[in-house]
Amino acid sequence: MGMGGTTGLAAGRDAWLISIGNELLIGRVVNTNFAWLGRRLTVLGYKVRGGIVVPDDVDDIAWGFRTALGRGASVIISTGGLGPTFDDKTAEGLAKALGVPLILNEEALRMVREKYERAGMGLTEARVKMARLPEGGKPIPNPVGTAPGVEVEVSDALIFLLPGVPSEMQAMFETYVEPKLREGGPKVFFAETTLISVGLPESEAAPLIAKAMKMSERAYIKSHPKGAELGRPLLELHITASGSSKDEALAEVERVAKALRELLEEKGAAVKKS
Amino acid sequence: MGMGGTTGLAAGRDAWLISIGNELLIGRVVNTNFAWLGRRLTVLGYKVRGGIVVPDDVDDIAWGFRTALGRGASVIISTGGLGPTFDDKTAEGLAKALGVPLILNEEALRMVREKYERAGMGLTEARVKMARLPEGGKPIPNPVGTAPGVEVEVSDALIFLLPGVPSEMQAMFETYVEPKLREGGPKVFFAETTLISVGLPESEAAPLIAKAMKMSERAYIKSHPKGAELGRPLLELHITASGSSKDEALAEVERVAKALRELLEEKGAAVKKS
Repeated sequence: MGMGGTTGLAAGRDAWLISIGNELLIGRVVNTNFAWLGRRLTVLGYKVRGGIVVPDDVDDIAWGFRTALGRGASVIISTGGLGPTFDDKTAEGLAKALGVPLILNEEALRMVREKYERAGMGLTEARVKMARLPEGGKPIPNPVGTAPGVEVEVSDALIFLLPGVPSEMQAMFETYVEPKLREGGPKVFFAETTLISVGLPESEAAPLIAKAMKMSERAYIKSHPKGAELGRPLLELHITASGSSKDEALAEVERVAKALRELLEEKGAAVKKS
Repeated sequence: MGMGGTTGLAAGRDAWLISIGNELLIGRVVNTNFAWLGRRLTVLGYKVRGGIVVPDDVDDIAWGFRTALGRGASVIISTGGLGPTFDDKTAEGLAKALGVPLILNEEALRMVREKYERAGMGLTEARVKMARLPEGGKPIPNPVGTAPGVEVEVSDALIFLLPGVPSEMQAMFETYVEPKLREGGPKVFFAETTLISVGLPESEAAPLIAKAMKMSERAYIKSHPKGAELGRPLLELHITASGSSKDEALAEVERVAKALRELLEEKGAAVKKS
């Protein structure tokens, strides 16, 4: 389980999710990150083989990572526990699991410093803490918040530590993790298409999007509000699907796009391909 | 890890949750059961120490139960995998974890038969399957659906298998599991109170209830719509809290009731104690 010198991803397709935080275990927060990541990894061709939820405790977190590695995970994504407070212990837990020290990472420190300087604030011990990564780890830029994520490559797995705040987690997955997994992960093919819907506000389209997504395991739909056209709300709907061949991916994206289009039109939207 | 001959609950306070189902891992379903059970167990005085999510696979399910037992769980509650279809494998997985056979349970068979007879339907092999429990297990009545739950006592833990459908899971928890844990679980004290709110529909009260619940780890609020009073919707709001003394529980229930009352009144409801 030492730090790997290999490049790219391990060959396996098994992914594990580790959710960190007392708030999940006491039921204060519903773990929507888990479902979001499960869907995205499935579309990327991974088989999500298991999930572990642990409290903000270094030993429990270390156990979670060791357990996922021991069960053969090729990719592990954790959410939560990356912030500046005393109970953010994910980096320390992973370091313990790997038997490596936590080390101040200069690149991570630069990221953290820039965030706070831009807000007219300086570094404090709590803020510097966010730049301490397991030895060998690389910081992942956080385009939304302050805490960098962490990427660690071990001999047989890639591990990504992401924050628990959904908007930060999603942005870091989409800008950093997903491109990496698309390039080096399971050999699957992707297809995509974009629909333009006019006349339905995003809040009314949301349940229809969820319904269309339930029709497929291998498709993901993202909606982007684009203002209004002649006073009617305009939505851009970006549909991605994957498959084991280009044709399969194309067929899946067309199937989901057709279903979504019909659902939107039933509610009075005018829909066209982008 | 053999079947225990003891009565009542093990002395520990550690609880584990096991969520079973491919739909959770591929992100088709958000695991609301986990948060619901986490809150309820916390109010009952348990420390929810961990959670495991596994696919519909006998070996993975068996691993999940063995892992929770190995980590010292006193109470384990699983959700999912109890239905009649081939991919409902929770009872088989638990039997495998405990090293006991699956046995047709006469009481469970009676429960299943009655459900189907009432609907004018007979027993099929798929339906009989729901009455096969790990040896030593007891069926838990399902007041909402057809699949019985399962209770298994092992030497150091109580294990409850509940269905994945939230309405069934919640009903079985409240009618069977909770009374048992209140009686034999951690020594905590409970206090409760009931508010009557007039003028707000349940859908508008729901986010206020969620907000009040976030103020406390040890309180649970249940709303019961009771029709209308002079055309204005009437809600009964039942608040339960626990504490390590009667006074602590009372203070907590009063604190949460006060907060909830203020939130409801801000939105125009007339609120009184029941």
